[in-house]
This record gives sequence, C-alpha cells and structure tokens, in this order.
Amino acid sequence: MRYELYYWPMIQGRCEYVRLALEEAGASYRDVAREEGIGAMTAVLEGAGDTPPFAPPFLKAGRRIIGQTANILLFLGSRHGLAPKAEAGQSWVHQLQLTVTDFVVEIHDTHHPLGPTLYYEDQRAAAKKRTAEFWSERVPKFLGYFEQILAKSGAYVTGRRLTYVDLSLFQIVAGLRYAFPRRMAAFEPNIPGLVALHDRVAIRPNVAAYLQSERRIPFNEDGIFRRYKALDV
Amino acid sequence: MRYELYYWPMIQGRCEYVRLALEEAGASYRDVAREEGIGAMTAVLEGAGDTPPFAPPFLKAGRRIIGQTANILLFLGSRHGLAPKAEAGQSWVHQLQLTVTDFVVEIHDTHHPLGPTLYYEDQRAAAKKRTAEFWSERVPKFLGYFEQILAKSGAYVTGRRLTYVDLSLFQIVAGLRYAFPRRMAAFEPNIPGLVALHDRVAIRPNVAAYLQSERRIPFNEDGIFRRYKALDV
Repeated sequence: MRYELYYWPMIQGRCEYVRLALEEAGASYRDVAREEGIGAMTAVLEGAGDTPPFAPPFLKAGRRIIGQTANILLFLGSRHGLAPKAEAGQSWVHQLQLTVTDFVVEIHDTHHPLGPTLYYEDQRAAAKKRTAEFWSERVPKFLGYFEQILAKSGAYVTGRRLTYVDLSLFQIVAGLRYAFPRRMAAFEPNIPGLVALHDRVAIRPNVAAYLQSERRIPFNEDGIFRRYKALDV
Repeated sequence: MRYELYYWPMIQGRCEYVRLALEEAGASYRDVAREEGIGAMTAVLEGAGDTPPFAPPFLKAGRRIIGQTANILLFLGSRHGLAPKAEAGQSWVHQLQLTVTDFVVEIHDTHHPLGPTLYYEDQRAAAKKRTAEFWSERVPKFLGYFEQILAKSGAYVTGRRLTYVDLSLFQIVAGLRYAFPRRMAAFEPNIPGLVALHDRVAIRPNVAAYLQSERRIPFNEDGIFRRYKALDV
C-alpha cells in the first residue's frame, strides 16, 4: 500500500516525526501537499465525512484517515517494525511519544507564548521570558528524563532495536541545535546519551539518505524550531 | 483487578479524565495519593525501574505502570467498553482524545502563558492577552470541531454508545463554565450539541453519583480550569 501523507508543504513541523518513521521503514508514500499544493489537502479534509482530522498532519492508509502525530506513529509503528510487538511495549513507546508531543508544544511556545494566531513579532518580550524559563526548567526536565531512560536502556529507548521514538528524539536534538545553537551547545554535556542517539540515528542508511534528499525540508522560521537571535543568548 | 491511580491530591487536573472513565465504568480503583499522600506517589515513581512515567497521572494495573492521560484512556477504553471494539474505531476515539489533550494545554496556558514554573501573579498581563486570543480564535476552533462531529454522530461522538471522549468533553464544558462563566455563557449558543452532551453525561447514574461524592475534587485555582476575574471579561 502506498500511503498518502498530508501536511503544510513549507515546513517540517509536526509532520517530520511521521516522515522520519516512513523513511526509516522504507515505506512507500506520497507527500501530497508538497506535490500538489494545499488544495489537495483541503479537499481531503472537507471530504473526510464523519471522522475528519482536527488539523494536519494526517495519513491516508487505504480508506482510513488517521490524524494526530503520535496516533499516526502508533499506527505505523506496529506495521513497520518501529515499535515492540507486545501490547505493553507498544503502550510504553506511545507513552514516550506523547511526552515528546508535550515537549514539542513547549518548544513551539518559546516563540508563541501568547498563542498560535499572533505573529512572533507581536510577542517578542513574552517570548524572551518564556524561553528563559524553557531553558532553565523545562529542557532539563524533559531531556533529563529521556537521558535517564537511555542510560538504562542502551542504544535506543527500548534497548537494541530502534523505535519511532528514537527517530523523534533525533529530531528534537537536531531541532534544538538549529533553533538555539548557543544554548544547546552549552547544554549538551548534560545529555551524552541523547547526543549519541542523535548520531546513531543520523547514520542509519535510510535516514541519512532522507536527510540529504530534497524530501527533507530545511529548518526555517515558519516551523516549530525557529532560530531567533534574541531568544538564543 | 483493583487499579491504583496516582495524581496530585488537591486538584482534578489531567487526572480527572481518567477518574471519569473509571467511575463511569464502575471500575475498582484507589486514588492513592489522596488516601496516603504524595510520598506514596513519589515512591512508585522512584521505583518504576526502566519505564518511569514522566509525570502524574499514572495508573498501576497489576505490574504495569501506564502514564500519559490519553494513553491511560486508550488502555482503559478497550477493557471497560468505553471505546469501540474495532481497531479503527479505537484509533479514531484516541485521535479525538489527543485533540482534547491539545485543547487542555491551551486552556492551561491561558493563565500560564509564560510557562508552568512561574506563578500566575507574575504573568497576569500576558495571561490577559493569551486569554483574549484563546476565546476569539482557539475556543471556536476546538469546540466548533467537536460540535461538528456531534452534529453528524448523534448522542455521543461515535453514535449511540458513550466513549471516554464523551466524558472528557463533559469535563471541558464543565471546566470552561467554572473558569470563564461570563465568556462561556456568551459562547454556549454556538455549541448546542456539546451542551446537550454535557447534560446527557451528567445524569448517567455512575457519573452523577461520582459528581456528588467526595471523590470529585471541587474545581479550584490550582488546577487546569481556574476562575480569575481578570480573565473573564
């Protein structure tokens, strides 16, 4: 089956966690709005009948339309060997992904503390305060949590086999490096396990090929991870 | 099996969605930190070994410890008839719950736009701005979405049978009424389906008994839904 993936075509955003999973799995998919424009995405949303997704990203798998990033990964994980086979293991990996999801919201809110509708330029002062708290309190808490798990588990969060959560943690490290190069460089000595995980994921053949392809949208200032000098002191 | 539920004992918070599911199902559970104090919760967290939850709430089910509200509901839903039996239906209901989760973050951020660590009193001006945007943009988007689904589905979000998402939507309506009585009263004419759903859930025998019991912690200004006059203009 060829999946159809739908998301805003100009950013990695929340879709990137899904793209990394599809790429690592070598799954066949089309990134539809990148090929055909946003109109194709709107058409699917409007024709979704009784079960419309709230927002992109969403995945068409045959007749099914699956929304919410972590829910898409839950679906893909068991079908493509990116999650444990036992139900308890799947639940654990999904639980970790939901914690990644929480962190992604807080990363986004560093530049949009007053809400997603206003422009960054209209909330700079608040963004500075939120970013300071993010780096002093929230980054140590979230990344410290995953570091602690990796210290016990080994190469990947569940042990020797890669899961979709490992791909997401790669993206978190890469994104924080892009958005906050100074702050992240100073923080990285605290998270050697996550840095090693990032490097281990980056050289996996399918991931490495994807990262060098045009399918990987570059980081930019419309996505989740934005590089604003004022926030990276 | 008797579940053990763990959460901060003085607030409904994110645990309330789980409590409502356990109560509706008539499941046997102990709300451990309310009975024994926070120390009992910390002890489980510290003894959780290789799979610690990031934060409360978490549920002990035999030897398993399950974290993340939506993940706990995914687990409970299939075991207690609070979700469809088919996998596609379970995925759809979980997807809706993750959208509720997103909304709950935004509700919390109305009073904590600059981050969860600072006090409300230290971020009042930002809270006013965020709350204005929340009511002009985000409430219509989120509640409008669920209203649209209910308009097609019937009594509950999947049709005739109640799911845990319906219980969560009850809590959302009740919470917004508590936190923003003026704004919510003005908004409710836009969401007749959700208001009817709220009323339908409230009179279900197990829910009604729970709401009148001491097991239901009253809304208060330490939880997600806080009544601050300055934010309810």
